[in-house]
Amino acid sequence: MNCFESFQVKPGSRVKLDKIDPGFTDCYSDREKAIPVIQKLDERIRALQYLMYAEGKRALLICLQGRDAAGKDGTINHVLGAMNPQGCTVTSFKQPSQEELAHDFLWRCHKVAPARGHIAIFNRSHYEDVLIQRVHRMVPESVWSKRYGHINHFEKLLSDHQTLILKFFLHIDADEQLKRFKQRIDDPTKHWKISESDYTEAAYWDSYTQAFEDALDKCSTPHAPWFVIPANHKWFRNLAVAAIVTEAMESLNMRFPKPRVDIEAIKRKYHALDAQDIKEGLIKVRKKNQ
Amino acid sequence: MNCFESFQVKPGSRVKLDKIDPGFTDCYSDREKAIPVIQKLDERIRALQYLMYAEGKRALLICLQGRDAAGKDGTINHVLGAMNPQGCTVTSFKQPSQEELAHDFLWRCHKVAPARGHIAIFNRSHYEDVLIQRVHRMVPESVWSKRYGHINHFEKLLSDHQTLILKFFLHIDADEQLKRFKQRIDDPTKHWKISESDYTEAAYWDSYTQAFEDALDKCSTPHAPWFVIPANHKWFRNLAVAAIVTEAMESLNMRFPKPRVDIEAIKRKYHALDAQDIKEGLIKVRKKNQ
Repeated sequence: MNCFESFQVKPGSRVKLDKIDPGFTDCYSDREKAIPVIQKLDERIRALQYLMYAEGKRALLICLQGRDAAGKDGTINHVLGAMNPQGCTVTSFKQPSQEELAHDFLWRCHKVAPARGHIAIFNRSHYEDVLIQRVHRMVPESVWSKRYGHINHFEKLLSDHQTLILKFFLHIDADEQLKRFKQRIDDPTKHWKISESDYTEAAYWDSYTQAFEDALDKCSTPHAPWFVIPANHKWFRNLAVAAIVTEAMESLNMRFPKPRVDIEAIKRKYHALDAQDIKEGLIKVRKKNQ
Repeated sequence: MNCFESFQVKPGSRVKLDKIDPGFTDCYSDREKAIPVIQKLDERIRALQYLMYAEGKRALLICLQGRDAAGKDGTINHVLGAMNPQGCTVTSFKQPSQEELAHDFLWRCHKVAPARGHIAIFNRSHYEDVLIQRVHRMVPESVWSKRYGHINHFEKLLSDHQTLILKFFLHIDADEQLKRFKQRIDDPTKHWKISESDYTEAAYWDSYTQAFEDALDKCSTPHAPWFVIPANHKWFRNLAVAAIVTEAMESLNMRFPKPRVDIEAIKRKYHALDAQDIKEGLIKVRKKNQ
């Protein structure tokens, strides 16, 4: 299947999350069938990352959003973690600092936007400002309602700078979320990150659904599409994200830049010599020129 | 073997690079024997990285230095690239910008020092300022000669902030370097990064040796040791770096922090319920409190 097409939120459409099956796994019956496919995609992503770096013309911004335990960290760890950390930065957007709050909501995101040739992964993103801030009424509607427009303009700015933008909503249901909370409780290496708010946030499930749907509807544009990824099965989530990243990067038709030097001339000049010859020859030239 | 001990530059010693065999491979006869060992070390590093993040008390700074083609990028790609990019940043120190040059030489490095719980990898580092700047006489001796002291104080500052500092000099000989230049010429995907200066820098081989030896002698301290890694064989270089990182992180005796909540109470309160119960129960509580 073409994951890009299948999971993209078509611009102008109205998303109803409860009509999208979070347990969908396409033609893959189980994890074992998916693993080799994911590994191949990961290798391809790494090659495309190298090409993007070499070409130095384009950038890639990946935004990950989803409810608690939807798998944002897991996606980074198992799929996007396959990237070379050189040339790839991950920023986790947590509670804003005093300095960040003293600026507009896009300031802290713009600072860490990817440079040409580079990849930036946002674990949560500027969308927090129309999600948690809206659900918990941290700012009035008159403020958050204007943010969708600001987000679209900001993403257009990045896109006009040759930044490919891919935004993933990792879609799980309430039962899967509770199951994952229970697994955390059973794993002593995860106890340190458990807080009661994991559970109390569940009371806001429907408000979050509304806020996510609005963000998906208003901000899935041709230049910065949203994807709703069925994420109850971690392996299918990984496969779908890897496939979309690969498809999107392939479509850029990137090329290695031409060499800055005459490769054949370099060969003739140096490759008949051995290391000692080069060293001594060059030292002589250097001394003569001094 | 204990790689930490074997390759560490003992504080106060005098390094003679031409007395250190860059082709050394310890008891490993070939790459195939080393690969499974490296894979195990990589897994262990990843687990230690997670523990460091969870504990949130310590940081790790890894500096990579070496001549052109010594394998700095390769080490990041194949060993340190095994780390989760979330919580690990790589900074490549290139020619300084105008803004960087307008500050002291440590300013740009300090900005990207690792925060508690995080890992920073420096591809080249503040040592460039006593290497290329010294060899090419970009600053007078009166300037660069003071920098060793500044570096030691800077590293002590980071160390006092619980930053583990590991500095690797990737040691190759001139023949190996020329061999790698030739391999680049034979690989069209690498032509874009070839420049004639790769070869002309060879004339400065001995000046670089002197500058490296001075940096190793003056700046290998108990809190920020230098390691000279035999790096003619890429697989042995990877093994040695991975082993030293693992040994050093193990020695920190890090522990998962205590949970912030009473795990048993959370279990009793929520885990008999299903997701729907939680949602409805909490919504009721929320409404009552409004």
